[in-house]
Amino acid sequence: MRALVLFSGGLDSTVLATQMKQEATETRLLSIDYGQRHAKELDHSQKVANHLGLAHEILKLPQLGQILGGSSLTDQSMTLPEGHYAEESMKSTVVPNRNMILLALAGGHALSLGLDTIAYAAHAGDHTIYPDCRPEFADAMDKALGLADWKDLNLHRPYVEMTKSDLVSLGDQLNAPLHLTWSCYAGGEIHCGKCGTCVERKEAFELANIADPTKYEE
Amino acid sequence: MRALVLFSGGLDSTVLATQMKQEATETRLLSIDYGQRHAKELDHSQKVANHLGLAHEILKLPQLGQILGGSSLTDQSMTLPEGHYAEESMKSTVVPNRNMILLALAGGHALSLGLDTIAYAAHAGDHTIYPDCRPEFADAMDKALGLADWKDLNLHRPYVEMTKSDLVSLGDQLNAPLHLTWSCYAGGEIHCGKCGTCVERKEAFELANIADPTKYEE
Repeated sequence: MRALVLFSGGLDSTVLATQMKQEATETRLLSIDYGQRHAKELDHSQKVANHLGLAHEILKLPQLGQILGGSSLTDQSMTLPEGHYAEESMKSTVVPNRNMILLALAGGHALSLGLDTIAYAAHAGDHTIYPDCRPEFADAMDKALGLADWKDLNLHRPYVEMTKSDLVSLGDQLNAPLHLTWSCYAGGEIHCGKCGTCVERKEAFELANIADPTKYEE
Repeated sequence: MRALVLFSGGLDSTVLATQMKQEATETRLLSIDYGQRHAKELDHSQKVANHLGLAHEILKLPQLGQILGGSSLTDQSMTLPEGHYAEESMKSTVVPNRNMILLALAGGHALSLGLDTIAYAAHAGDHTIYPDCRPEFADAMDKALGLADWKDLNLHRPYVEMTKSDLVSLGDQLNAPLHLTWSCYAGGEIHCGKCGTCVERKEAFELANIADPTKYEE
């Protein structure tokens, strides 16, 4: 397996990058700036990549926000919801067709580098609000990626039936640099502790019964 | 059907835009600048959109060339092949995973506008060199687009079994502004008449037995 990991610098894709580094013949990381509210995630992606010693590229496409309207993750004028990740209000954080766009870009890059696999870290906890994290979406994308070129290209998605606390346990076991990862949607100095991803992150460490290395504002 | 047409300003997507305007409840056009060698296509896309009186947006993502290496369509340092479209040499014009990237971006835009259909004009003549114009690729993308959101989104691809000369005949019949379209890969003042798409364009008018309104250098 010669893999390109779709890599945000968050907890999930950091566990995946760590696992791929140990299991794949070749592992490279690709981060994509699609006009997120803050660059915090991308800063952290570089720290994790350096820690793991993996080749890492960042593709900057801030204009994407121009056509992907209506998400509080890309639109600075919208209010970010607080509370639990699975709540109705969190739907405003959906960026329309985000994962297909990211996987398509990763596919193009993987093909131009001669790699045979794209790895992405969608997990079961994401399904509630993000339709493009569902296993059936990943299956369809695997099929489409396999037909997009004369060469085969596979979508590796080993976490699609796992919970986030499973990923914390796995990351701990693999010695993944979880302390360097960033989850918070708010983009302050440290994790806010209140937004959906912060709440989900805290909960995942608690459920996994592993000490949370994250500093939260509250 | 409320449709977003993936629209290059070329002959194929101009026929499609014309047909959709006549058949769909709502038709909008999206052109994407992915770092092509020249802006000629995009200029022509605006002329056709004005002629048809359809809403038209251009998404500029010139940085895409940065990760999609190795195509003579985006890399200025490579030589454009001349001769027939179906020849081996034309493979250098393949942009890796181009259609998945364009369809994914169109999908995101269609969802944010509340449209239910993406229309794209891949046709049978493209299959020989472009794997992502094959019917089975379109089928897989239709499936993936339908799962990418909670709302349904369909991929309309009425020309996948038609030849380019079929499209010239259809365009003529629908009164499509074929004279405003641009095919040439070279990007001069007028069509070069020698590159793969020029050769294919000439041939399509001849086979359809319809007068070619295009001015060629030779």
